[in-house]
Amino acid sequence: MIQSVDRAVAVLLELQGARRLRLTELANRLSLPNSTVHGIVATLVTRGMVEQDASGRYALGPGVLRLSNVYLDSNELRLRALTWTEALAERSGCAVRVGVPLERDIVVIHHVLRPDGSHQMREIGIDIPAHGTALGKAVLAFDTRRATELLATAPLPKLTGRTCVDGDELAEQLAGVRDDGIATAFDEAILGESELAAPIFDAHDAVVGAVGVVLSSSEATGDRMIGDEVRRTAVSISRELGASAWPPRSRPPKAPGD
Amino acid sequence: MIQSVDRAVAVLLELQGARRLRLTELANRLSLPNSTVHGIVATLVTRGMVEQDASGRYALGPGVLRLSNVYLDSNELRLRALTWTEALAERSGCAVRVGVPLERDIVVIHHVLRPDGSHQMREIGIDIPAHGTALGKAVLAFDTRRATELLATAPLPKLTGRTCVDGDELAEQLAGVRDDGIATAFDEAILGESELAAPIFDAHDAVVGAVGVVLSSSEATGDRMIGDEVRRTAVSISRELGASAWPPRSRPPKAPGD
Repeated sequence: MIQSVDRAVAVLLELQGARRLRLTELANRLSLPNSTVHGIVATLVTRGMVEQDASGRYALGPGVLRLSNVYLDSNELRLRALTWTEALAERSGCAVRVGVPLERDIVVIHHVLRPDGSHQMREIGIDIPAHGTALGKAVLAFDTRRATELLATAPLPKLTGRTCVDGDELAEQLAGVRDDGIATAFDEAILGESELAAPIFDAHDAVVGAVGVVLSSSEATGDRMIGDEVRRTAVSISRELGASAWPPRSRPPKAPGD
Repeated sequence: MIQSVDRAVAVLLELQGARRLRLTELANRLSLPNSTVHGIVATLVTRGMVEQDASGRYALGPGVLRLSNVYLDSNELRLRALTWTEALAERSGCAVRVGVPLERDIVVIHHVLRPDGSHQMREIGIDIPAHGTALGKAVLAFDTRRATELLATAPLPKLTGRTCVDGDELAEQLAGVRDDGIATAFDEAILGESELAAPIFDAHDAVVGAVGVVLSSSEATGDRMIGDEVRRTAVSISRELGASAWPPRSRPPKAPGD
Protein backbone atom coordinates (compact mmCIF):
# COMPACT_ATOMS: atom_id res chain seq x y z
CA MET A 1 0.00 0.00 0.00
CA ILE A 2 1.52 3.30 -1.07
CA GLN A 3 0.16 6.08 1.10
CA SER A 4 0.14 8.92 -1.42
CA VAL A 5 -1.52 6.73 -4.07
CA ASP A 6 -4.17 5.70 -1.58
CA ARG A 7 -4.70 9.36 -0.70
CA ALA A 8 -5.02 10.27 -4.37
CA VAL A 9 -7.80 7.71 -4.74
CA ALA A 10 -9.37 9.07 -1.54
CA VAL A 11 -9.38 12.55 -3.16
CA LEU A 12 -11.18 11.14 -6.21
CA LEU A 13 -13.72 9.36 -4.01
CA GLU A 14 -14.41 12.51 -1.98
CA LEU A 15 -15.06 14.40 -5.21
CA GLN A 16 -17.26 11.51 -6.34
CA GLY A 17 -19.37 11.93 -3.22
CA ALA A 18 -19.43 15.72 -2.97
CA ARG A 19 -19.03 16.61 -6.69
CA ARG A 20 -17.36 19.99 -6.01
CA LEU A 21 -15.07 20.92 -3.15
CA ARG A 22 -12.66 23.70 -2.27
CA LEU A 23 -9.15 22.72 -1.28
CA THR A 24 -9.81 23.38 2.41
CA GLU A 25 -13.00 21.34 2.34
CA LEU A 26 -11.16 18.44 0.71
CA ALA A 27 -8.33 18.66 3.25
CA ASN A 28 -10.79 18.73 6.16
CA ARG A 29 -12.68 15.70 4.91
CA LEU A 30 -9.43 13.76 4.55
CA SER A 31 -7.93 15.11 7.80
CA LEU A 32 -4.79 16.11 5.94
CA PRO A 33 -2.88 19.42 5.69
CA ASN A 34 -3.88 21.71 2.81
CA SER A 35 -0.37 21.51 1.39
CA THR A 36 -0.45 17.70 1.16
CA VAL A 37 -3.83 17.71 -0.56
CA HIS A 38 -2.76 20.53 -2.86
CA GLY A 39 0.17 18.46 -4.14
CA ILE A 40 -2.10 15.51 -4.87
CA VAL A 41 -4.81 17.59 -6.53
CA ALA A 42 -2.30 19.51 -8.65
CA THR A 43 -0.92 16.20 -9.96
CA LEU A 44 -4.40 14.91 -10.74
CA VAL A 45 -5.32 18.18 -12.51
CA THR A 46 -2.24 17.88 -14.75
CA ARG A 47 -3.50 14.47 -15.83
CA GLY A 48 -7.11 15.59 -16.40
CA MET A 49 -8.47 13.35 -13.64
CA VAL A 50 -9.58 16.44 -11.68
CA GLU A 51 -10.47 19.91 -12.91
CA GLN A 52 -11.01 23.25 -11.24
CA ASP A 53 -14.22 25.11 -12.01
CA ALA A 54 -14.69 28.84 -12.49
CA SER A 55 -15.30 29.35 -8.76
CA GLY A 56 -12.04 27.59 -7.85
CA ARG A 57 -13.67 24.40 -6.60
CA TYR A 58 -12.36 21.01 -7.65
CA ALA A 59 -14.42 18.40 -9.50
CA LEU A 60 -13.71 15.17 -11.35
CA GLY A 61 -12.20 15.71 -14.81
CA PRO A 62 -12.65 14.17 -18.27
CA GLY A 63 -9.74 11.78 -17.69
CA VAL A 64 -11.97 9.54 -15.56
CA LEU A 65 -14.48 9.31 -18.41
CA ARG A 66 -11.88 8.03 -20.83
CA LEU A 67 -10.83 5.35 -18.34
CA SER A 68 -14.39 4.17 -17.81
CA ASN A 69 -15.00 3.83 -21.51
CA VAL A 70 -12.08 1.42 -21.80
CA TYR A 71 -13.22 -0.43 -18.67
CA LEU A 72 -16.65 -1.03 -20.23
CA ASP A 73 -15.22 -1.97 -23.61
CA SER A 74 -12.78 -4.49 -22.24
CA ASN A 75 -14.74 -6.01 -19.36
CA GLU A 76 -15.15 -9.67 -20.26
CA LEU A 77 -18.25 -10.23 -18.17
CA ARG A 78 -19.97 -7.34 -19.90
CA LEU A 79 -18.91 -8.48 -23.37
CA ARG A 80 -20.20 -11.99 -22.72
CA ALA A 81 -23.45 -10.61 -21.33
CA LEU A 82 -24.37 -8.36 -24.28
CA THR A 83 -26.42 -10.72 -26.42
CA TRP A 84 -27.88 -12.73 -23.54
CA THR A 85 -29.16 -9.64 -21.75
CA GLU A 86 -30.68 -8.25 -24.94
CA ALA A 87 -32.58 -11.52 -25.37
CA LEU A 88 -33.66 -11.52 -21.71
CA ALA A 89 -35.07 -8.01 -22.05
CA GLU A 90 -37.04 -9.03 -25.13
CA ARG A 91 -38.43 -12.23 -23.64
CA SER A 92 -39.28 -10.76 -20.24
CA GLY A 93 -40.33 -7.27 -21.32
CA CYS A 94 -38.21 -5.96 -18.42
CA ALA A 95 -35.15 -3.76 -18.06
CA VAL A 96 -32.04 -5.91 -17.51
CA ARG A 97 -28.95 -4.95 -15.52
CA VAL A 98 -25.58 -6.57 -14.93
CA GLY A 99 -23.68 -5.58 -11.80
CA VAL A 100 -20.31 -6.28 -10.22
CA PRO A 101 -19.37 -5.93 -6.56
CA LEU A 102 -17.16 -3.04 -5.41
CA GLU A 103 -16.57 -2.80 -1.68
CA ARG A 104 -20.04 -2.78 -0.09
CA ASP A 105 -21.84 -1.83 -3.30
CA ILE A 106 -22.95 -3.19 -6.63
CA VAL A 107 -21.89 -1.12 -9.63
CA VAL A 108 -24.13 -1.44 -12.69
CA ILE A 109 -21.90 -2.17 -15.70
CA HIS A 110 -24.59 -2.94 -18.27
CA HIS A 111 -28.19 -1.88 -18.67
CA VAL A 112 -30.65 -2.90 -21.36
CA LEU A 113 -33.64 -0.59 -21.27
CA ARG A 114 -37.17 -1.96 -20.94
CA PRO A 115 -38.23 -2.67 -24.52
CA ASP A 116 -41.52 -0.75 -24.30
CA GLY A 117 -39.89 2.43 -25.56
CA SER A 118 -40.79 4.43 -22.44
CA HIS A 119 -38.49 7.21 -21.27
CA GLN A 120 -35.77 5.65 -19.10
CA MET A 121 -32.40 6.71 -17.72
CA ARG A 122 -29.36 4.62 -18.51
CA GLU A 123 -28.04 3.40 -15.18
CA ILE A 124 -24.52 2.36 -16.16
CA GLY A 125 -22.06 3.43 -13.47
CA ILE A 126 -24.56 3.87 -10.65
CA ASP A 127 -23.82 2.09 -7.40
CA ILE A 128 -26.33 0.56 -5.04
CA PRO A 129 -25.56 -0.79 -1.54
CA ALA A 130 -25.29 -4.54 -2.15
CA HIS A 131 -27.74 -5.57 0.59
CA GLY A 132 -30.52 -3.44 -0.96
CA THR A 133 -30.57 -4.97 -4.43
CA ALA A 134 -31.20 -8.45 -5.81
CA LEU A 135 -27.95 -8.12 -7.82
CA GLY A 136 -26.08 -7.69 -4.54
CA LYS A 137 -27.81 -10.56 -2.77
CA ALA A 138 -27.05 -12.85 -5.70
CA VAL A 139 -23.35 -12.02 -5.32
CA LEU A 140 -23.28 -12.09 -1.50
CA ALA A 141 -24.86 -15.55 -1.43
CA PHE A 142 -21.76 -16.98 -3.11
CA ASP A 143 -19.06 -14.63 -1.79
CA THR A 144 -18.61 -15.77 1.80
CA ARG A 145 -15.91 -13.26 2.72
CA ARG A 146 -17.86 -10.27 1.43
CA ALA A 147 -21.09 -11.44 3.06
CA THR A 148 -19.43 -12.05 6.42
CA GLU A 149 -17.86 -8.61 6.43
CA LEU A 150 -21.14 -6.96 5.51
CA LEU A 151 -23.27 -8.92 7.98
CA ALA A 152 -20.82 -8.04 10.75
CA THR A 153 -21.94 -4.42 10.44
CA ALA A 154 -25.70 -5.07 10.58
CA PRO A 155 -28.08 -3.31 11.01
CA LEU A 156 -27.33 -2.06 7.52
CA PRO A 157 -28.44 1.27 6.09
CA LYS A 158 -32.07 1.53 5.04
CA LEU A 159 -32.62 2.71 1.45
CA THR A 160 -36.40 2.52 1.68
CA GLY A 161 -38.73 1.44 4.46
CA ARG A 162 -38.58 -2.07 2.99
CA THR A 163 -34.81 -2.62 2.76
CA CYS A 164 -33.77 -5.73 4.66
CA VAL A 165 -31.27 -4.41 7.21
CA ASP A 166 -31.34 -7.22 9.78
CA GLY A 167 -28.32 -9.53 9.66
CA ASP A 168 -30.15 -12.77 10.50
CA GLU A 169 -32.92 -12.11 8.02
CA LEU A 170 -30.43 -11.26 5.28
CA ALA A 171 -28.37 -14.39 6.04
CA GLU A 172 -31.55 -16.44 5.66
CA GLN A 173 -32.32 -14.79 2.33
CA LEU A 174 -28.79 -15.58 1.12
CA ALA A 175 -29.25 -19.25 2.04
CA GLY A 176 -32.42 -19.18 -0.06
CA VAL A 177 -30.46 -17.81 -3.02
CA ARG A 178 -28.01 -20.70 -2.69
CA ASP A 179 -30.98 -23.10 -2.82
CA ASP A 180 -32.75 -21.87 -5.94
CA GLY A 181 -30.25 -19.52 -7.59
CA ILE A 182 -32.60 -16.54 -7.58
CA ALA A 183 -32.29 -13.43 -5.41
CA THR A 184 -35.21 -11.04 -5.02
CA ALA A 185 -35.78 -7.51 -3.78
CA PHE A 186 -39.19 -5.90 -3.52
CA ASP A 187 -39.18 -2.11 -3.13
CA GLU A 188 -35.85 -2.37 -1.29
CA ALA A 189 -33.78 0.18 -3.23
CA ILE A 190 -36.57 2.19 -4.90
CA LEU A 191 -40.24 2.11 -3.97
CA GLY A 192 -42.27 0.60 -6.76
CA GLU A 193 -39.35 -1.33 -8.27
CA SER A 194 -38.81 -5.02 -7.77
CA GLU A 195 -35.98 -7.21 -8.95
CA LEU A 196 -35.04 -10.81 -9.66
CA ALA A 197 -31.34 -11.61 -10.11
CA ALA A 198 -29.00 -14.57 -10.43
CA PRO A 199 -25.25 -14.89 -9.84
CA ILE A 200 -22.62 -15.21 -12.58
CA PHE A 201 -19.53 -17.39 -12.10
CA ASP A 202 -16.18 -17.49 -13.90
CA ALA A 203 -13.77 -20.25 -14.89
CA HIS A 204 -12.57 -20.50 -11.28
CA ASP A 205 -16.18 -21.00 -10.17
CA ALA A 206 -15.93 -17.69 -8.29
CA VAL A 207 -18.90 -15.32 -8.35
CA VAL A 208 -17.99 -12.26 -10.43
CA GLY A 209 -21.30 -10.43 -10.71
CA ALA A 210 -24.99 -10.89 -11.27
CA VAL A 211 -27.67 -10.35 -13.89
CA GLY A 212 -31.21 -9.36 -13.09
CA VAL A 213 -34.44 -7.81 -14.26
CA VAL A 214 -36.24 -4.80 -12.87
CA LEU A 215 -40.03 -4.73 -12.98
CA SER A 216 -42.64 -2.54 -11.40
CA SER A 217 -43.71 -3.97 -8.06
CA SER A 218 -47.34 -4.21 -9.18
CA GLU A 219 -46.24 -6.63 -11.94
CA ALA A 220 -44.07 -8.70 -9.59
CA THR A 221 -46.63 -11.40 -8.91
CA GLY A 222 -44.10 -14.11 -8.24
CA ASP A 223 -44.06 -14.97 -11.93
CA ARG A 224 -41.95 -18.12 -12.11
CA MET A 225 -41.38 -17.77 -15.83
CA ILE A 226 -39.31 -14.63 -15.39
CA GLY A 227 -37.23 -16.27 -12.65
CA ASP A 228 -36.50 -19.16 -15.00
CA GLU A 229 -35.46 -16.74 -17.75
CA VAL A 230 -33.13 -14.86 -15.39
CA ARG A 231 -31.56 -18.11 -14.21
CA ARG A 232 -31.05 -19.36 -17.75
CA THR A 233 -29.37 -16.06 -18.67
CA ALA A 234 -26.99 -16.31 -15.72
CA VAL A 235 -26.18 -19.91 -16.65
CA SER A 236 -25.43 -18.94 -20.27
CA ILE A 237 -23.13 -16.06 -19.33
CA SER A 238 -21.35 -18.18 -16.69
CA ARG A 239 -20.82 -20.96 -19.23
CA GLU A 240 -19.28 -18.47 -21.66
CA LEU A 241 -16.93 -17.33 -18.90
CA GLY A 242 -15.83 -20.92 -18.39
CA ALA A 243 -17.77 -21.91 -15.28
CA SER A 244 -18.00 -25.68 -14.92
CA ALA A 245 -21.37 -25.85 -13.18
CA TRP A 246 -24.12 -23.50 -11.99
CA PRO A 247 -24.05 -22.86 -9.15
CA PRO A 248 -20.55 -24.29 -8.58
CA ARG A 249 -20.56 -27.61 -6.73
CA SER A 250 -17.94 -26.63 -4.15
CA ARG A 251 -18.19 -23.40 -2.21
CA PRO A 252 -15.86 -21.78 -1.41
CA PRO A 253 -13.82 -22.92 -4.46
CA LYS A 254 -10.90 -24.11 -2.35
CA ALA A 255 -12.68 -25.59 0.67
CA PRO A 256 -10.53 -27.71 3.03
CA GLY A 257 -10.25 -31.28 1.80
CA ASP A 258 -10.88 -30.38 -1.86
CA MET B 1 3.69 17.21 -8.56
CA ILE B 2 3.80 14.09 -6.39
CA GLN B 3 5.77 11.40 -8.14
CA SER B 4 3.93 8.33 -6.88
CA VAL B 5 0.53 9.89 -7.65
CA ASP B 6 1.71 10.72 -11.14
CA ARG B 7 2.94 7.15 -11.56
CA ALA B 8 -0.40 5.80 -10.36
CA VAL B 9 -2.16 7.80 -13.08
CA ALA B 10 0.44 6.56 -15.57
CA VAL B 11 -0.46 2.98 -14.57
CA LEU B 12 -4.14 3.70 -15.23
CA LEU B 13 -3.32 5.27 -18.60
CA GLU B 14 -1.18 2.29 -19.65
CA LEU B 15 -4.07 -0.02 -18.81
CA GLN B 16 -6.37 2.32 -20.73
CA GLY B 17 -4.19 1.89 -23.80
CA ALA B 18 -3.36 -1.79 -23.51
CA ARG B 19 -6.47 -3.00 -21.66
CA ARG B 20 -4.70 -5.97 -20.01
CA LEU B 21 -1.08 -6.19 -18.85
CA ARG B 22 1.04 -8.42 -16.66
CA LEU B 23 3.05 -6.75 -13.90
CA THR B 24 6.31 -7.09 -15.84
CA GLU B 25 4.76 -5.61 -18.98
CA LEU B 26 3.45 -2.66 -16.99
CA ALA B 27 6.83 -2.11 -15.33
CA ASN B 28 8.63 -2.26 -18.69
CA ARG B 29 6.30 0.26 -20.29
CA LEU B 30 6.80 2.65 -17.39
CA SER B 31 10.56 1.96 -17.08
CA LEU B 32 10.14 1.27 -13.37
CA PRO B 33 11.14 -1.66 -11.16
CA ASN B 34 8.53 -4.41 -10.74
CA SER B 35 8.43 -3.79 -6.99
CA THR B 36 7.55 -0.10 -7.41
CA VAL B 37 4.77 -0.87 -9.86
CA HIS B 38 3.51 -3.70 -7.69
CA GLY B 39 3.04 -1.34 -4.75
CA ILE B 40 1.06 1.10 -6.89
CA VAL B 41 -1.08 -1.58 -8.52
CA ALA B 42 -1.82 -3.29 -5.21
CA THR B 43 -3.09 0.03 -3.82
CA LEU B 44 -5.26 0.63 -6.87
CA VAL B 45 -6.66 -2.92 -6.68
CA THR B 46 -7.68 -2.36 -3.03
CA ARG B 47 -9.68 0.64 -4.16
CA GLY B 48 -11.31 -1.13 -7.13
CA MET B 49 -9.62 1.15 -9.69
CA VAL B 50 -7.72 -1.83 -11.10
CA GLU B 51 -8.58 -5.52 -11.06
CA GLN B 52 -6.69 -8.70 -11.79
CA ASP B 53 -8.22 -11.13 -14.24
CA ALA B 54 -8.20 -14.91 -14.08
CA SER B 55 -4.91 -15.09 -15.99
CA GLY B 56 -3.19 -12.73 -13.54
CA ARG B 57 -3.17 -9.73 -15.87
CA TYR B 58 -4.24 -6.32 -14.64
CA ALA B 59 -7.11 -4.32 -16.14
CA LEU B 60 -9.09 -1.24 -15.16
CA GLY B 61 -11.64 -1.91 -12.41
CA PRO B 62 -15.24 -0.88 -11.69
CA GLY B 63 -14.08 2.02 -9.50
CA VAL B 64 -13.31 4.08 -12.60
CA LEU B 65 -16.85 3.57 -13.87
CA ARG B 66 -18.37 4.98 -10.70
CA LEU B 67 -16.16 8.06 -10.99
CA SER B 68 -17.13 8.68 -14.59
CA ASN B 69 -20.80 8.49 -13.81
CA VAL B 70 -20.43 11.30 -11.28
CA TYR B 71 -18.27 13.28 -13.72
CA LEU B 72 -21.03 13.13 -16.35
CA ASP B 73 -23.80 13.90 -13.87
CA SER B 74 -22.08 16.93 -12.43
CA ASN B 75 -20.39 18.42 -15.49
CA GLU B 76 -21.96 21.84 -15.95
CA LEU B 77 -21.23 22.10 -19.66
CA ARG B 78 -22.97 18.79 -20.24
CA LEU B 79 -25.96 19.71 -18.09
CA ARG B 80 -26.40 23.00 -19.92
CA ALA B 81 -26.06 21.25 -23.28
CA LEU B 82 -28.72 18.58 -22.74
CA THR B 83 -31.82 20.30 -24.09
CA TRP B 84 -30.02 22.34 -26.76
CA THR B 85 -28.33 19.28 -28.25
CA GLU B 86 -31.58 17.32 -28.27
CA ALA B 87 -33.19 20.16 -30.24
CA LEU B 88 -30.23 20.38 -32.62
CA ALA B 89 -30.47 16.65 -33.38
CA GLU B 90 -34.17 16.99 -34.13
CA ARG B 91 -33.82 20.05 -36.34
CA SER B 92 -30.76 18.84 -38.25
CA GLY B 93 -31.56 15.13 -38.40
CA CYS B 94 -27.92 14.52 -37.41
CA ALA B 95 -26.13 12.93 -34.47
CA VAL B 96 -24.87 15.61 -32.10
CA ARG B 97 -21.78 15.42 -29.89
CA VAL B 98 -20.29 17.64 -27.21
CA GLY B 99 -16.56 17.32 -26.54
CA VAL B 100 -14.01 18.76 -24.12
CA PRO B 101 -10.25 18.97 -24.61
CA LEU B 102 -7.93 16.64 -22.68
CA GLU B 103 -4.25 16.90 -23.53
CA ARG B 104 -4.05 16.49 -27.32
CA ASP B 105 -7.48 14.89 -27.62
CA ILE B 106 -11.15 15.67 -27.54
CA VAL B 107 -13.20 13.50 -25.19
CA VAL B 108 -16.86 13.10 -26.13
CA ILE B 109 -18.94 13.86 -23.02
CA HIS B 110 -22.39 13.87 -24.61
CA HIS B 111 -23.88 12.19 -27.65
CA VAL B 112 -27.40 12.49 -29.00
CA LEU B 113 -28.02 9.72 -31.51
CA ARG B 114 -29.20 10.50 -35.03
CA PRO B 115 -33.00 10.62 -34.72
CA ASP B 116 -33.66 8.22 -37.62
CA GLY B 117 -33.69 5.24 -35.24
CA SER B 118 -30.85 3.47 -37.02
CA HIS B 119 -28.48 1.27 -35.06
CA GLN B 120 -25.75 3.48 -33.57
CA MET B 121 -23.12 3.17 -30.88
CA ARG B 122 -23.10 5.65 -28.03
CA GLU B 123 -19.76 7.43 -28.21
CA ILE B 124 -19.57 8.94 -24.73
CA GLY B 125 -16.03 8.61 -23.36
CA ILE B 126 -14.26 8.06 -26.68
CA ASP B 127 -11.31 10.28 -27.43
CA ILE B 128 -10.29 11.60 -30.82
CA PRO B 129 -7.02 13.43 -31.61
CA ALA B 130 -8.12 17.10 -31.57
CA HIS B 131 -6.65 17.98 -34.97
CA GLY B 132 -8.70 15.26 -36.69
CA THR B 133 -12.16 16.35 -35.59
CA ALA B 134 -14.22 19.51 -36.05
CA LEU B 135 -14.85 19.52 -32.28
CA GLY B 136 -11.12 19.78 -31.75
CA LYS B 137 -10.57 22.48 -34.35
CA ALA B 138 -13.37 24.55 -32.79
CA VAL B 139 -11.54 24.41 -29.44
CA LEU B 140 -8.03 24.89 -30.85
CA ALA B 141 -9.10 28.03 -32.73
CA PHE B 142 -9.75 29.78 -29.41
CA ASP B 143 -7.19 28.07 -27.15
CA THR B 144 -3.91 29.63 -28.22
CA ARG B 145 -1.70 27.73 -25.79
CA ARG B 146 -3.09 24.34 -26.76
CA ALA B 147 -2.94 25.13 -30.47
CA THR B 148 0.64 26.37 -30.30
CA GLU B 149 1.78 23.25 -28.46
CA LEU B 150 0.02 21.00 -30.93
CA LEU B 151 1.20 22.81 -34.05
CA ALA B 152 4.78 22.66 -32.75
CA THR B 153 4.69 18.89 -33.24
CA ALA B 154 3.36 18.91 -36.82
CA PRO B 155 3.19 16.84 -38.97
CA LEU B 156 0.47 15.37 -36.80
CA PRO B 157 -0.71 11.76 -36.88
CA LYS B 158 -2.92 10.76 -39.79
CA LEU B 159 -6.23 9.14 -38.78
CA THR B 160 -7.42 8.71 -42.37
CA GLY B 161 -5.87 9.67 -45.70
CA ARG B 162 -7.75 12.96 -45.41
CA THR B 163 -6.70 14.12 -41.93
CA CYS B 164 -5.08 17.55 -42.07
CA VAL B 165 -1.63 16.95 -40.59
CA ASP B 166 0.24 19.96 -41.94
CA GLY B 167 0.84 22.73 -39.40
CA ASP B 168 0.44 25.69 -41.78
CA GLU B 169 -2.72 24.30 -43.31
CA LEU B 170 -4.21 23.58 -39.90
CA ALA B 171 -3.30 27.09 -38.65
CA GLU B 172 -5.11 28.53 -41.66
CA GLN B 173 -8.19 26.41 -40.92
CA LEU B 174 -8.16 27.64 -37.30
CA ALA B 175 -8.07 31.26 -38.49
CA GLY B 176 -11.13 30.45 -40.61
CA VAL B 177 -12.92 29.11 -37.53
CA ARG B 178 -12.22 32.39 -35.73
CA ASP B 179 -13.79 34.22 -38.69
CA ASP B 180 -17.10 32.39 -38.99
CA GLY B 181 -17.34 30.32 -35.78
CA ILE B 182 -17.68 27.01 -37.60
CA ALA B 183 -15.07 24.24 -37.79
CA THR B 184 -15.38 21.45 -40.33
CA ALA B 185 -13.85 18.04 -40.90
CA PHE B 186 -14.56 15.90 -43.95
CA ASP B 187 -13.58 12.24 -43.64
CA GLU B 188 -10.74 13.27 -41.31
CA ALA B 189 -11.39 10.90 -38.38
CA ILE B 190 -13.57 8.29 -40.07
CA LEU B 191 -14.06 7.82 -43.80
CA GLY B 192 -17.60 8.67 -44.78
CA GLU B 193 -18.25 10.88 -41.76
CA SER B 194 -18.20 14.65 -41.89
CA GLU B 195 -18.63 17.15 -39.10
CA LEU B 196 -19.53 20.75 -38.39
CA ALA B 197 -18.76 22.12 -34.93
CA ALA B 198 -18.70 25.39 -32.99
CA PRO B 199 -16.87 26.38 -29.79
CA ILE B 200 -18.48 26.85 -26.38
CA PHE B 201 -17.28 29.57 -23.99
CA ASP B 202 -17.77 30.02 -20.24
CA ALA B 203 -18.27 33.03 -17.96
CA HIS B 204 -14.55 33.86 -18.26
CA ASP B 205 -14.90 33.87 -22.04
CA ALA B 206 -12.55 30.88 -22.15
CA VAL B 207 -13.28 28.06 -24.59
CA VAL B 208 -14.37 24.99 -22.60
CA GLY B 209 -15.51 22.62 -25.32
CA ALA B 210 -17.43 22.37 -28.57
CA VAL B 211 -20.71 21.11 -29.96
CA GLY B 212 -21.07 19.60 -33.39
CA VAL B 213 -23.06 17.43 -35.74
CA VAL B 214 -21.94 14.31 -37.59
CA LEU B 215 -23.37 13.60 -41.00
CA SER B 216 -22.51 11.17 -43.72
CA SER B 217 -20.05 12.77 -46.14
CA SER B 218 -22.43 12.25 -49.08
CA GLU B 219 -24.97 14.51 -47.33
CA ALA B 220 -22.37 17.17 -46.46
CA THR B 221 -23.12 19.48 -49.38
CA GLY B 222 -22.03 22.62 -47.61
CA ASP B 223 -25.53 23.06 -46.27
CA ARG B 224 -25.46 26.48 -44.64
CA MET B 225 -28.62 25.84 -42.69
CA ILE B 226 -26.96 23.16 -40.57
CA GLY B 227 -23.98 25.42 -39.91
CA ASP B 228 -26.34 28.11 -38.67
CA GLU B 229 -28.10 25.62 -36.39
CA VAL B 230 -24.79 24.43 -34.92
CA ARG B 231 -23.66 28.01 -34.32
CA ARG B 232 -26.93 28.93 -32.64
CA THR B 233 -26.65 25.89 -30.37
CA ALA B 234 -23.12 26.86 -29.33
CA VAL B 235 -24.27 30.42 -28.64
CA SER B 236 -27.17 29.20 -26.48
CA ILE B 237 -25.00 26.87 -24.40
CA SER B 238 -22.29 29.53 -24.01
CA ARG B 239 -24.88 32.06 -22.88
CA GLU B 240 -26.17 29.63 -20.24
CA LEU B 241 -22.60 29.21 -19.01
CA GLY B 242 -22.33 32.97 -18.61
CA ALA B 243 -20.31 33.94 -21.70
CA SER B 244 -20.68 37.64 -22.49
CA ALA B 245 -20.32 37.43 -26.26
CA TRP B 246 -19.84 34.79 -28.93
CA PRO B 247 -17.10 34.50 -29.89
CA PRO B 248 -15.55 36.55 -27.07
CA ARG B 249 -14.39 40.00 -28.21
CA SER B 250 -10.94 39.80 -26.64
CA ARG B 251 -8.70 36.81 -27.18
CA PRO B 252 -6.88 35.72 -25.12
CA PRO B 253 -9.22 36.84 -22.28
CA LYS B 254 -6.51 38.83 -20.53
CA ALA B 255 -4.65 40.34 -23.47
CA PRO B 256 -2.15 43.13 -22.66
CA GLY B 257 -3.88 46.48 -22.43
CA ASP B 258 -7.28 45.01 -21.48
